[in-house]
Amino acid sequence: MTEIALASLQNLYRIFTVPEAPDSTLGAIDQAISENVEDFLHKHIVALERSLEEIEKDFSFAAIPEEPTFVSEYTEFVKQKLVAQSVHTAAPGFVGHMTSALPYFMLPLSRIMTALNQNLVKVETSKAFTPLERQVLAMLHRLIYLREDKFYDQWIHDSEHALGAFCSGGTIANTTALWAARNRLFQPEGDFRGIAEEGLFKAYQHLKCEGLAVLVSRRAHYSLKKATDLLGLGRDNLILVDTDLDNRIDLISLKEQYRELLKRNIRPLALVGIAGTTETGHVDPLDKMADFAAEIGCHFHVDAAWGGPTLFSDTHRHLLRGIERADSVTIDAHKQLYVPMGAGMVLFKSPDTLSAIEHHANYILRHGSKDLGSHTLEGSRPGKALLVHAGLSIIGRKGYELLIDLGIERARKFAELIDQHPNFELITKPELNILTYRFNPDWLQDLLPRLDPALLNQVNQLLDQIVQEVQKRQREAGKTFVSRTRLRAAKYDNGQQITVFRSVLANPLTTEKILSEVLQEQCDIVRDTEVQRLLEQIKTLLKNAKPAAAI
Amino acid sequence: MTEIALASLQNLYRIFTVPEAPDSTLGAIDQAISENVEDFLHKHIVALERSLEEIEKDFSFAAIPEEPTFVSEYTEFVKQKLVAQSVHTAAPGFVGHMTSALPYFMLPLSRIMTALNQNLVKVETSKAFTPLERQVLAMLHRLIYLREDKFYDQWIHDSEHALGAFCSGGTIANTTALWAARNRLFQPEGDFRGIAEEGLFKAYQHLKCEGLAVLVSRRAHYSLKKATDLLGLGRDNLILVDTDLDNRIDLISLKEQYRELLKRNIRPLALVGIAGTTETGHVDPLDKMADFAAEIGCHFHVDAAWGGPTLFSDTHRHLLRGIERADSVTIDAHKQLYVPMGAGMVLFKSPDTLSAIEHHANYILRHGSKDLGSHTLEGSRPGKALLVHAGLSIIGRKGYELLIDLGIERARKFAELIDQHPNFELITKPELNILTYRFNPDWLQDLLPRLDPALLNQVNQLLDQIVQEVQKRQREAGKTFVSRTRLRAAKYDNGQQITVFRSVLANPLTTEKILSEVLQEQCDIVRDTEVQRLLEQIKTLLKNAKPAAAI
Repeated sequence: MTEIALASLQNLYRIFTVPEAPDSTLGAIDQAISENVEDFLHKHIVALERSLEEIEKDFSFAAIPEEPTFVSEYTEFVKQKLVAQSVHTAAPGFVGHMTSALPYFMLPLSRIMTALNQNLVKVETSKAFTPLERQVLAMLHRLIYLREDKFYDQWIHDSEHALGAFCSGGTIANTTALWAARNRLFQPEGDFRGIAEEGLFKAYQHLKCEGLAVLVSRRAHYSLKKATDLLGLGRDNLILVDTDLDNRIDLISLKEQYRELLKRNIRPLALVGIAGTTETGHVDPLDKMADFAAEIGCHFHVDAAWGGPTLFSDTHRHLLRGIERADSVTIDAHKQLYVPMGAGMVLFKSPDTLSAIEHHANYILRHGSKDLGSHTLEGSRPGKALLVHAGLSIIGRKGYELLIDLGIERARKFAELIDQHPNFELITKPELNILTYRFNPDWLQDLLPRLDPALLNQVNQLLDQIVQEVQKRQREAGKTFVSRTRLRAAKYDNGQQITVFRSVLANPLTTEKILSEVLQEQCDIVRDTEVQRLLEQIKTLLKNAKPAAAI
Repeated sequence: MTEIALASLQNLYRIFTVPEAPDSTLGAIDQAISENVEDFLHKHIVALERSLEEIEKDFSFAAIPEEPTFVSEYTEFVKQKLVAQSVHTAAPGFVGHMTSALPYFMLPLSRIMTALNQNLVKVETSKAFTPLERQVLAMLHRLIYLREDKFYDQWIHDSEHALGAFCSGGTIANTTALWAARNRLFQPEGDFRGIAEEGLFKAYQHLKCEGLAVLVSRRAHYSLKKATDLLGLGRDNLILVDTDLDNRIDLISLKEQYRELLKRNIRPLALVGIAGTTETGHVDPLDKMADFAAEIGCHFHVDAAWGGPTLFSDTHRHLLRGIERADSVTIDAHKQLYVPMGAGMVLFKSPDTLSAIEHHANYILRHGSKDLGSHTLEGSRPGKALLVHAGLSIIGRKGYELLIDLGIERARKFAELIDQHPNFELITKPELNILTYRFNPDWLQDLLPRLDPALLNQVNQLLDQIVQEVQKRQREAGKTFVSRTRLRAAKYDNGQQITVFRSVLANPLTTEKILSEVLQEQCDIVRDTEVQRLLEQIKTLLKNAKPAAAI
């Protein structure tokens, strides 16, 4: 071996065996994050936004460097080019994301998880993490289904059954639920060996149907569209049912849609209720949906990725009444369980359901083993269940209840602030801790109901532009943040969508004062000439309109 | 608010704002891991295995605790019940997993990632992490496809295209590849609006086929079976082609299988080549497979989850010749890129392919946005791409080359040790850094070829039991670890599978001395009475056999 090769080899061993010194660049950052993460983020994330195109320049080489780089040099790069230009998701003034602050203990526990580097796919590489994950699934199962102790004693560690599946997030959770439902509907029967073996084409022929549909309200998360594509049902067969004035599925429309499907020889695979829509945070009438699912004999899934933890609250739990009748439920831990990104779950009422997607292999997931991987869509997975377990243990049911209650209270306060403000219009009232609103000054709000439809549309389009512009500038300024979406508002329901600000009030550190500042900043942006020009256009429109249209 | 409620509230704020003190239980562990992770794992993981049933007792309560728990108390639980009973995946004597030691810098960088808590689904919650991830995908793309700079300048940050998708692991990567291939095969044409919209049933009717098959060798990873189920093709249509004596797909059988499919009006969706089979580490003849895929006009996917990083090595890169002709390639970063669990990628030759699974929504993934989520199976995802970027930058191409070269060399050394050892039989020679072997003493090895098939089977079954017993006891003792699998061995190819030890030589800290100890420990276990009893059974069998059968 040449001297150079030997030197490289020694360096290589070093990175596997010698930790970063505490006074090294990386050691110092590590220390700073341990001591005060909020301070670190505040100091190092540059508020003012550079354009994405400009940031891209720092990430434009496609060639893998030939030679190694010093850790210190790389750390400087991370600090200046990456951390500085990331998003301060934990900031209490950033009320537009579903990602918020993390409890402190999540950071050192994440390090333990990373250092152990377990692979949850099989017991052989995860040992105690396997029963831990099963326990977490049982805990969430119990939160939803409230089954008796005996039930959990029997199933929690049963190798042939699963109370749910842990996964990277809500999309995989929803997909797993529909996959299991699909495979159960087309289970082996007579000569037919089941859809898992024979595929969807033969399954349809076997049941003599022309299609398989998933019914859900218009407020459905986009992952359901992805899932219907992936599973071979086709996006056409995700039936988006109209909502009522409160963004909940309209049961009359639901029944109409169902009858339509039957006429076309399309079978309902699943009815999906939403517990906390992504855009407005509303909860479908789960109990009535459960009735209907039972009546038509289809799988009832509840997407509670956001709203599931409302079950912790004795005060608000009733909003989700009926969830305990769902065949499957999605909950995201990286949302309202305050766990770092990449942790979702799907729970199944019956410990049998997941058998429909069970699989085995020669070297792992052998029959009778307790390997978690025999019932998951993913293969290799990290031990994220530890962080959920930690949250449930350290924060406890009552702690999460407090977080949920405070969030809903905060959202109501914010709704009041908006309602009382001369510049803003509340579009969707918060049922949980999400609301939408828009810029729409009082004088204009009073006028709008009296405009003819064409003019109303024109005005709304200009208001859309104002909202879009304000949201963009607020984001770029980097002090506070709300997101935006487009939706059909109950008030202006002429089939048109309007653009609205969307606010998610889950960060426990967000105060009423901060929420006032969010609105104040938006008012300041409105005073800007470009936004004023849009406002002038509205005034001109109204002035030029025939008196009949404007009055 | 009552005093108790106020106290709870204050405690709740504390966990979001006050870090663990350095002298707290959790702070001390955090420090210990920072200072010397190997020492921490060595000290805290209890070698001797408790039975899973016993461990389960510590994880058997399904009720979420009502009251909060002190962090210190919880940390003690983690230390004693979880860490102590986890698997020391990084230990150099654990040569049965695909999870090995991590470079030190991965730990503090993981903490930065967790603290930033970005969500890569959209630019709004990931800013600089979005171009970073796109750069990582381009780097891996270039490693495989070696395209010119101009190509990457054009596509790396193009909002309407993607060079690949980052995901939680190889299973999602393989599924994404087949999903994109399926949707491209059934793209919109005339009245047919494509499979994504209309679903698989109508797609088959449109192309007038009865099925869609994926062709791959018997050594395929089980995720492909899962993917064919999920995508609606059915596991029946995963066609497992026989392998040659070197565990590579047999091209004559492949062509026969293809002709069979045509007769049954089943279309080949994809041909899958394996670059590093999970069980034996062999590489399919990718170049010839690319020829055949081109000839029959189907998607060519390469599952290089394990073997992909062989491309770093100038010495061994040639083994993967033809991979640059693949339409898509899977690579796992949590395997031979030495990144913590939960990081995989799929790369696509053409920047257009992923358009077949593109999706948009109102509030994110808007048309024209650079949101990564419009081309991924998963939704919310953490910023794991940082860790891949760090590895590629800090270790560099040459560093990874050294790791690959050393691993292959180490595997060859181990194969020699086994070959020369009087107690063991090498079953599959290492092509990369994986090999399989079994207990089979020299005197028996000499006899086996002369036994009649029935007797051979009986002896093999007893040897299987010995291997299974030795592997189990070695695992339970917790000092060293090899895994086991069942496969058809070239030597004894009478259609029967035999049980073998499987060894993966990827940990750079594994020395030749450690490998000798692994074998020595197995020899020690063989001397145990129970194993000796099995050996006696073999001897009795041979003694009682008719002379004709035994000679």
